[in-house]
Amino acid sequence: MFHEILQGIVNEASGLSAVLMGYDGLPVHQVDRHSEGLDLNMVAVEYSGVLKEVRNTVALLNTGDLEEMAISTERFHVIIRALTEEYFVTLTIARDGNFGKGRYLLAREAHRLKEALR
Amino acid sequence: MFHEILQGIVNEASGLSAVLMGYDGLPVHQVDRHSEGLDLNMVAVEYSGVLKEVRNTVALLNTGDLEEMAISTERFHVIIRALTEEYFVTLTIARDGNFGKGRYLLAREAHRLKEALR
Repeated sequence: MFHEILQGIVNEASGLSAVLMGYDGLPVHQVDRHSEGLDLNMVAVEYSGVLKEVRNTVALLNTGDLEEMAISTERFHVIIRALTEEYFVTLTIARDGNFGKGRYLLAREAHRLKEALR
Repeated sequence: MFHEILQGIVNEASGLSAVLMGYDGLPVHQVDRHSEGLDLNMVAVEYSGVLKEVRNTVALLNTGDLEEMAISTERFHVIIRALTEEYFVTLTIARDGNFGKGRYLLAREAHRLKEALR
C-alpha cells in the first residue's frame, strides 16, 4: 500500500524519490527513480533531524501544527509533509522539476498515507 | 532602500510581514502589515536558528547552496530566501494567501536586496 502511493507520487511528479519516514530518522518505505549521485538515505535521516527542530520551533511560536516544509538548493527541491505525530513523507525532485505539482501531490496523498499508517 | 523593497514585497504578496535578517538572529529591517497576534520578532529569531541548521545540513549533503526554505503551519506560510553568507529575507503570509506569488516575489527581489546589502 505504501509502495503504490509513493510510486504514484514519484511518477506523477517526475520526482527522484519519495520516502515515508519516522521522526526517529528511520525510513518506513522508500521509492527511488533516480538518485542523481545523492545518498537518499542520508538525505532522509538529515532532514528528519531538521524537521524535528522545525516542529519544536512551530510549537514554541504557537502558529498551529506544522503541515509542510520545503527546502530548495541549487540541485534539488525537497518537499516534506507532516502526517502523524510519528511519521512524515518526503519528495525529492530535480531543481527544474515542478515544485508546485510536488506540493499538490503530497497534500493530495497525505490522507491515504495516514489511512495506510493506521 | 531596504524599506522600499520589503514594503513592495509585502504589498504585492498581501503578506503580513517581510524581514531582512542576519543569520545571527538580528533583524536589519522589518515591514509589518498585520501581526495577527504573532510575535514577528520571535518568529524571525527562531527561524534564523532553523535556517542555520538547514544550511549546515545542505552543506553536509553536498546538494548545492541553500536557496529557499518554506514552512507552512495551520496559520501561516513563512518563506525564507537566502541572500548572502550573512543575510536572508523572510516573508510571512496568511495560510490562505498566495504561496506561489510569495515565492516568486522573493526570488524576483533577491538580486535587488543583495545589491542594497553591499
